[in-house]
Amino acid sequence: MTTTNTHDTQILVDTEVPLVRIIREFDAPVEKVFRAHTDVDLFRQWNGPRGYKMDVPHFDCRTGGSYRYTHTTDTGFVAGFYGSFHEVRENELIVQTFTFDGVPDGVALEKLHFEDLGNGRTRLTATSLVDSFEDRDAFVASGMETGVNEGYEKLDELLAS
Amino acid sequence: MTTTNTHDTQILVDTEVPLVRIIREFDAPVEKVFRAHTDVDLFRQWNGPRGYKMDVPHFDCRTGGSYRYTHTTDTGFVAGFYGSFHEVRENELIVQTFTFDGVPDGVALEKLHFEDLGNGRTRLTATSLVDSFEDRDAFVASGMETGVNEGYEKLDELLAS
Repeated sequence: MTTTNTHDTQILVDTEVPLVRIIREFDAPVEKVFRAHTDVDLFRQWNGPRGYKMDVPHFDCRTGGSYRYTHTTDTGFVAGFYGSFHEVRENELIVQTFTFDGVPDGVALEKLHFEDLGNGRTRLTATSLVDSFEDRDAFVASGMETGVNEGYEKLDELLAS
Repeated sequence: MTTTNTHDTQILVDTEVPLVRIIREFDAPVEKVFRAHTDVDLFRQWNGPRGYKMDVPHFDCRTGGSYRYTHTTDTGFVAGFYGSFHEVRENELIVQTFTFDGVPDGVALEKLHFEDLGNGRTRLTATSLVDSFEDRDAFVASGMETGVNEGYEKLDELLAS
């Protein structure tokens, strides 16, 4: 899959292993994109779909730390997410786990690679690995694309502000 | 693969996904087998190959906690391991991440399922998922089998004491 607009989000399913790869470029330096993922006051401003209320009761973004946050829709539905930060390597890598409360036995291992493209631009490659192709395909079919796209558009706005 | 001795350890490579499955039964109640994994004073007594010195500088076995331990050989080689406890569900499940210091970019997502077989017996099924078949096969070929077998033999002894 190729895109002509560098700000499009590519969501690619791996053919060999049950993994989703999300690739997105940002017009901001790697330090700034990284900090928008590790600083809770920035993270809460862009994560998730538009129009949701974001609450972050716990966010300790360091190697060995953990997090919990919720998205609340305007109809009052609350979706909770939690996980651990396995490793946080400054301006380079975050390895974390991820579970949605609605699927309590599901867990993904996520790696976020931050790549300095020069000229104040950054490529983020996020992979999400689960232990079956069915679960991976269900995740992709869940409507996650809207949340990912809208979240990164909000992140563009935050990085430009 | 089938075994005639219930105390044999089965190490099975999955054909569909890059996962190793380790199955082992113990002549002890599930509560006792679980506690040997979560109580650091018990864990340090059985984990790893025989003849290694085990040090556990950090072990916070609860949902959102993390750990670090080292094995030191009699020649002074130190192998360090660390990770996060994504979820700890009493007498049932531990979901954790695992990295060996020697392969700092490698990370496995591990699930330990504890199953009460009745009559004071327990089956432990541990899965270890990585994001490529090459890494999975390198892990299996690394000599991990000795550490797993000897560790579980030491756990048998601890559970019987």
